[in-house]
Amino acid sequence: MTEMTVDARVSPEGPLAVLSKAEVNKLLDTSQGGLYRLLHNCSLAVLNCGNYMDDGKELLERYRSFSIQVIQEERGIKLEVTGAPANAFVDGYMIKGIKEHLFAVLRDIVYVSDEINDNPKFDLNNSEGITNAVFHILRNANIIRPRTEPKLIVCWGGHSISREEYNYTKEVGYQIGLRGMNICTGCGPGAMKGPMKGATIGHAKQRINNGHYIGISEPGIIAAESPNPIVNDLVILPDIEKRLEAFVRTGHGIVVFPGGAGTAEEILYLLGILLHPDNREIPFPLIFTGPHSALEYFKQINQFIGDTLGFEAQQRYKIIIDDPARVAREMRTGMRQVREFRHRKDDAYYFNWLLRINPEFQLPFVPSHENMANLELHKNQERHQLAADLRRVFSGIVAGNVKDEGIRAIEQYGHFEIKGDAEIMEPVDRLLSAFVDQQRMKLPGKAYVPCYKIVK
Amino acid sequence: MTEMTVDARVSPEGPLAVLSKAEVNKLLDTSQGGLYRLLHNCSLAVLNCGNYMDDGKELLERYRSFSIQVIQEERGIKLEVTGAPANAFVDGYMIKGIKEHLFAVLRDIVYVSDEINDNPKFDLNNSEGITNAVFHILRNANIIRPRTEPKLIVCWGGHSISREEYNYTKEVGYQIGLRGMNICTGCGPGAMKGPMKGATIGHAKQRINNGHYIGISEPGIIAAESPNPIVNDLVILPDIEKRLEAFVRTGHGIVVFPGGAGTAEEILYLLGILLHPDNREIPFPLIFTGPHSALEYFKQINQFIGDTLGFEAQQRYKIIIDDPARVAREMRTGMRQVREFRHRKDDAYYFNWLLRINPEFQLPFVPSHENMANLELHKNQERHQLAADLRRVFSGIVAGNVKDEGIRAIEQYGHFEIKGDAEIMEPVDRLLSAFVDQQRMKLPGKAYVPCYKIVK
Amino acid sequence: MTEMTVDARVSPEGPLAVLSKAEVNKLLDTSQGGLYRLLHNCSLAVLNCGNYMDDGKELLERYRSFSIQVIQEERGIKLEVTGAPANAFVDGYMIKGIKEHLFAVLRDIVYVSDEINDNPKFDLNNSEGITNAVFHILRNANIIRPRTEPKLIVCWGGHSISREEYNYTKEVGYQIGLRGMNICTGCGPGAMKGPMKGATIGHAKQRINNGHYIGISEPGIIAAESPNPIVNDLVILPDIEKRLEAFVRTGHGIVVFPGGAGTAEEILYLLGILLHPDNREIPFPLIFTGPHSALEYFKQINQFIGDTLGFEAQQRYKIIIDDPARVAREMRTGMRQVREFRHRKDDAYYFNWLLRINPEFQLPFVPSHENMANLELHKNQERHQLAADLRRVFSGIVAGNVKDEGIRAIEQYGHFEIKGDAEIMEPVDRLLSAFVDQQRMKLPGKAYVPCYKIVK
Amino acid sequence: MTEMTVDARVSPEGPLAVLSKAEVNKLLDTSQGGLYRLLHNCSLAVLNCGNYMDDGKELLERYRSFSIQVIQEERGIKLEVTGAPANAFVDGYMIKGIKEHLFAVLRDIVYVSDEINDNPKFDLNNSEGITNAVFHILRNANIIRPRTEPKLIVCWGGHSISREEYNYTKEVGYQIGLRGMNICTGCGPGAMKGPMKGATIGHAKQRINNGHYIGISEPGIIAAESPNPIVNDLVILPDIEKRLEAFVRTGHGIVVFPGGAGTAEEILYLLGILLHPDNREIPFPLIFTGPHSALEYFKQINQFIGDTLGFEAQQRYKIIIDDPARVAREMRTGMRQVREFRHRKDDAYYFNWLLRINPEFQLPFVPSHENMANLELHKNQERHQLAADLRRVFSGIVAGNVKDEGIRAIEQYGHFEIKGDAEIMEPVDRLLSAFVDQQRMKLPGKAYVPCYKIVK
Repeated sequence: MTEMTVDARVSPEGPLAVLSKAEVNKLLDTSQGGLYRLLHNCSLAVLNCGNYMDDGKELLERYRSFSIQVIQEERGIKLEVTGAPANAFVDGYMIKGIKEHLFAVLRDIVYVSDEINDNPKFDLNNSEGITNAVFHILRNANIIRPRTEPKLIVCWGGHSISREEYNYTKEVGYQIGLRGMNICTGCGPGAMKGPMKGATIGHAKQRINNGHYIGISEPGIIAAESPNPIVNDLVILPDIEKRLEAFVRTGHGIVVFPGGAGTAEEILYLLGILLHPDNREIPFPLIFTGPHSALEYFKQINQFIGDTLGFEAQQRYKIIIDDPARVAREMRTGMRQVREFRHRKDDAYYFNWLLRINPEFQLPFVPSHENMANLELHKNQERHQLAADLRRVFSGIVAGNVKDEGIRAIEQYGHFEIKGDAEIMEPVDRLLSAFVDQQRMKLPGKAYVPCYKIVK
Repeated sequence: MTEMTVDARVSPEGPLAVLSKAEVNKLLDTSQGGLYRLLHNCSLAVLNCGNYMDDGKELLERYRSFSIQVIQEERGIKLEVTGAPANAFVDGYMIKGIKEHLFAVLRDIVYVSDEINDNPKFDLNNSEGITNAVFHILRNANIIRPRTEPKLIVCWGGHSISREEYNYTKEVGYQIGLRGMNICTGCGPGAMKGPMKGATIGHAKQRINNGHYIGISEPGIIAAESPNPIVNDLVILPDIEKRLEAFVRTGHGIVVFPGGAGTAEEILYLLGILLHPDNREIPFPLIFTGPHSALEYFKQINQFIGDTLGFEAQQRYKIIIDDPARVAREMRTGMRQVREFRHRKDDAYYFNWLLRINPEFQLPFVPSHENMANLELHKNQERHQLAADLRRVFSGIVAGNVKDEGIRAIEQYGHFEIKGDAEIMEPVDRLLSAFVDQQRMKLPGKAYVPCYKIVK
Repeated sequence: MTEMTVDARVSPEGPLAVLSKAEVNKLLDTSQGGLYRLLHNCSLAVLNCGNYMDDGKELLERYRSFSIQVIQEERGIKLEVTGAPANAFVDGYMIKGIKEHLFAVLRDIVYVSDEINDNPKFDLNNSEGITNAVFHILRNANIIRPRTEPKLIVCWGGHSISREEYNYTKEVGYQIGLRGMNICTGCGPGAMKGPMKGATIGHAKQRINNGHYIGISEPGIIAAESPNPIVNDLVILPDIEKRLEAFVRTGHGIVVFPGGAGTAEEILYLLGILLHPDNREIPFPLIFTGPHSALEYFKQINQFIGDTLGFEAQQRYKIIIDDPARVAREMRTGMRQVREFRHRKDDAYYFNWLLRINPEFQLPFVPSHENMANLELHKNQERHQLAADLRRVFSGIVAGNVKDEGIRAIEQYGHFEIKGDAEIMEPVDRLLSAFVDQQRMKLPGKAYVPCYKIVK
Repeated sequence: MTEMTVDARVSPEGPLAVLSKAEVNKLLDTSQGGLYRLLHNCSLAVLNCGNYMDDGKELLERYRSFSIQVIQEERGIKLEVTGAPANAFVDGYMIKGIKEHLFAVLRDIVYVSDEINDNPKFDLNNSEGITNAVFHILRNANIIRPRTEPKLIVCWGGHSISREEYNYTKEVGYQIGLRGMNICTGCGPGAMKGPMKGATIGHAKQRINNGHYIGISEPGIIAAESPNPIVNDLVILPDIEKRLEAFVRTGHGIVVFPGGAGTAEEILYLLGILLHPDNREIPFPLIFTGPHSALEYFKQINQFIGDTLGFEAQQRYKIIIDDPARVAREMRTGMRQVREFRHRKDDAYYFNWLLRINPEFQLPFVPSHENMANLELHKNQERHQLAADLRRVFSGIVAGNVKDEGIRAIEQYGHFEIKGDAEIMEPVDRLLSAFVDQQRMKLPGKAYVPCYKIVK
């Protein structure tokens, strides 16, 4: 199958676009030490917007001839793309939102390489150092804005959801937008796109011209979750752990829609943090919601959480079925609590410094076969630590399902083996099976071949 | 049935909001000579947004206790509403877009009363005088903007259309928005709302923050076609004829979606003008379009036009089935032709001065039983004159269906009788029957009781 | 002496620039009934900025070949000037501020002619009608802005003042600008230009990008008081009385610098109004100020007011010598009083509706020889009425000094004769003689030939 | 003498104001390794605006009780100052422009400390590394803006000049502003302030709301050259050499007004660079200008350059006496040449990458007594190398005159001794004597006590 492609030279739309000579050279360097491969892959993902695919490997194979080049000109830099997906263009011109994303990719790759990595100021093996790096990356991407009230709602949920669920996410976004709040998602299709579309309409009705639609991605996932062009602030964190930290430190509340393994990973990540004794007092509005048809799904999730992390964990969220306006109203109330708490503690509105995040949630987890086999899945430990390893289970499955490297590892070595106590493994097994049954593991129309085996 | 209502005092959002003492007094005057009734009815219509109803009479009856008051304060005027439809509010605050519409209603009522009516500068019995008045009303409403390229696409079509047709209008709007063009509609639901929603998303992706969504209404119809809050420039013309003139003089191209009697009225109005020999050279992009399911509908329309106005009239439009991107591309090409023509003729981009509109299309037609009975419906006249009276047929039917006064007249005197030559009346009859069959005369869920009788 | 001139075609910068065909035709009509002469003279005055001259007659003679033409083009109208003063251009391009003024002149001439004159809505023989007309002209010129706090300081004073006095006006403007207040003047040189220059610097330091520098002029004086291009909102009222009313209804406080007959006219106008019993409670901050060298001047003014209008009139102003920061601080305090009063009375911040202005201050005074001879200058009447006729004395002298028509009348018929009781005429004589001695009647370097004779 | 001081807590006005916890801690750290001292001194200099003093030592002594504190709050950081100079406030509120400068100081200190120093990416001992650091500091300060045409005019000249010279610099700035160009200076009084004031008025007349007034300073000089609040982009480079490099790489042309040792240093720096063979082809508009009274001064400078660097150096500048409009016109022509050259070479408009600057112009020169004594001042070397050491002569004298450390060194060890060949030392001596005679070494009213001795 040959894909329609386009060649083009594009000028930046967003702010940055001023690179030093050294930065340009590094981007053009296709050697091992250079950044070219990273720039190439992320750019292709951004340009592929709309043609959703499940995995990054497929994308790279489909657009083999794609290339990208940084060009220094008198008014700033330009990017030259060849063999780019035709969808990114309207009548030969690249959609402006996509152009902005291309340059956001460039900006973040340069910044992480130049200012974070190897800079002795950032110790990436230590909790504070990692948080500091996340902060700097977000600040550089202009995500962090002083003098604004808490109003950023993170929406999590599956990229592969039913039409009904999708429409529901739009309606929730619309109600959130009507109330002047903004949206942040992982920036792929499905539950990551619906709320932004809805909020766009809500903001238009309220004449909010500066609605903020933040997309937070990472190089490993961006191919499968190509950002929707509505996203008007895209930032690429270096890995999934820093991406998750970015969500919970910048978002002021979180809405979870139905999803698959990725959504479970996100839920476990957040609950694991909120269960830490130091975070007990911190308000963090968290709502699980969906249309009537999602009732069963959320019952399963709720059961799974009760079975593994206990009822305390269940106190940190509220399940609301089929009532978008109520979701938005609850979030608005939540915003006031967050505001008051931070005000009282002199903590920034734009970055949740007070939230304690332990290293087990921060240090990158490489889902190798060995690491997956060695997870500690038993109740003989603190709940937030169990949550950390449960989170890694789902993280590994996401990698095996949709990430380029993960897929190749499964092709080479076979299933991940996941072992643990039966009282943990049984709920895990039930949940994963339900996801498979409900077609939440892959985009519809494809049969799902599991990348894991539960060993009880 | 009791309706949820809200009382509120609102400050203006838009520009105006500075009234002289004399203007305020006139608005507060509930006597015969005052403007209160007009302000009351139009304001209620604007506030009723979202609760679509078919007719104005129903609206007034439902919100009997509604009232509105102009209040002069130190920073400008405010409006106090009591008994207003709850839909216009989110958690007790009026949606900003609706607030803007309220003040637009006020602005236009004041302007027409103060500066147009009784002003010897405007002779409203003569073609030039009417055009001049339309121009002044639009200019005062800030609809006319110099230094912009031709890019305003008027979308016509039914307020009562199927979900599939509605989604199609959104998709067309999206493609138009992606190409940087703006939308103007009659500002009710259905085909008047879909294109604006679509264009909002298209503009968001192209980072067009100043997308222009113009709604052109008139006091008689606004109750049935309550403006969608996305409309960010609302203007109320005094009557249907000036409203239609506003569409064709400010719009640079027109897309017609499936609709009922109102849409037929619009089509006949435009074709009647374009058939005038003086307008032969003037480019006016006109596309009839819908999803596959609308194929039959457009065949009927096309047949009706061929039967009554002849094949020359058919040369003035293009029918495109199920191809939104092509509709948008054709319009863009059309914009270039319009631009070139006006540039060559030194005619304004923002107002089509050159278009000749004869008085029979401009003078208000009162659809009394007598006037309806006396229309000249035969081929023994110039085609553009036949078009004028055919237009009036449909105008009368719209009044009998949805306008407050029309409904009351039908209640009192029974059906309109419409007479003419068989070779005209048969196509008319066929078309109207088709509209009734396809449920295009009323909002779904209500049985349509015809307000007319064809007398061949 | 031949002047450097330039020919150019300019597009509008400001909002307007959308004219109807009827409006364009009227402007193009150079016949007697048209507006051409008015447009020509005011435009020339605006273009002559910087080349200050004392009188309009001189200006017209110097640029005999000047002409101006309105041109209709596809994106709006343009203006074509030939034989325009070279000073209005920088390297062949018209200074943008001057371009805006040209189009403001056009806007106001069209509006007054089209919407005010002969419009039965405005009865220009009655007090309310005149105020209403002033309001509409200002609203149309976008001078009236809702939702802003009281902060517009009117500065009056001579166009012909010493360097020291000029620098002082700049310093006062600077201090006013630093405190976030705006400036309104009659928009000529001297005391009308200095405060704007100063405020520009003050605003720049406070990062106020939307500083408002309003110039209020009228066709009879504009030639002698060509607007400084810093003026970013120029409005041309039809006559001196409406101009004065515009000052006192839009300004929130007034600073008077040293000046000549025009300044005396302004002071008498304002005191006459403030002395009306109905206005007793209305706060109206009024400060007379100048550098040390102006001490004598203000003593004379103060004496004259005491001699003619009595000590009550002296209670309405404060004299501050050589302390610009104090002037600005007093004005800021005054702004708070104005705000509070209007808030309490629900009067608009942007237009002083409550101020009573009697017809004798509103009806145009034609300074014919006969009218000048018939003024009632005695103490046997109410003080505000005496003030009205004293105001007319100085108005006539200004006309005889600098206005085109006045100068021609003096050339033809000789001196104005001004008669009255000695206890009035002696102070008048002393004041006028002092003005002549201090060279306040004409631009320096010219000998002043009086246009009047005091008959005691 | 006790100074009026004010205590205040201020919120940021400009963009940044988001600091990480680590950054805040470093700023509060008053130990040797901390940044407190630097922040304190630069902040005091910024707040002292308007009270010009000759030296930083005097400033610190006068405001002994001044302190500054960074405070983290929920909406971002604030700064708390105590004992701040009263001049920075208007009626108790800090002037916004000064507030911006305070936060600019903070931003640059944090950036240089965190991202430049000790970052292995920047090798500050090598030419490319230094240039890269300068670029990053400027980019971080938002001085570098893509997509703008070349139009930044650097103005150099004395902070201590006559009223006549000062007015002339204003007039030149006005003419530059009228032509749409921007101003960059070292941001003190005199020739560094006049052009900005003039350009502000020029821009106001041309309705340029985003006029760019860049001030480039460094910690050592800022106390003596406190930035004028008109400066709307202030950047603090770490040392004089990086500051000079910032001027020549961001400015597109340079105007030199009369000045003293600092101005001579700047001229020698620039000529030294332009004399390098690699820079021969690069257009660099350079004009020396002043009023008639400055004729003699520029003759002396011209003679000195001819005597020491030869006639080739004289070819790189043009001397224009008493013609501000011509200076501005020449600069505009120069802008076109710069634009064309960079366009042809694909070099950035916003940063002159192509200009070769040798390490002797980049490496910080510490004007110790030993270093001053060891300068190579003879003709037996390449001209651009001689220029480098001549530049250092004047740099040392500036330090001895006005910099805190320099003054203390002179107090401790006596005069600098400057040695060299007679054919160099005689012109140096003549020039310095002329500066002393003309009172160009210190602010007027103080006797100048030389800090050097020429040893021929």
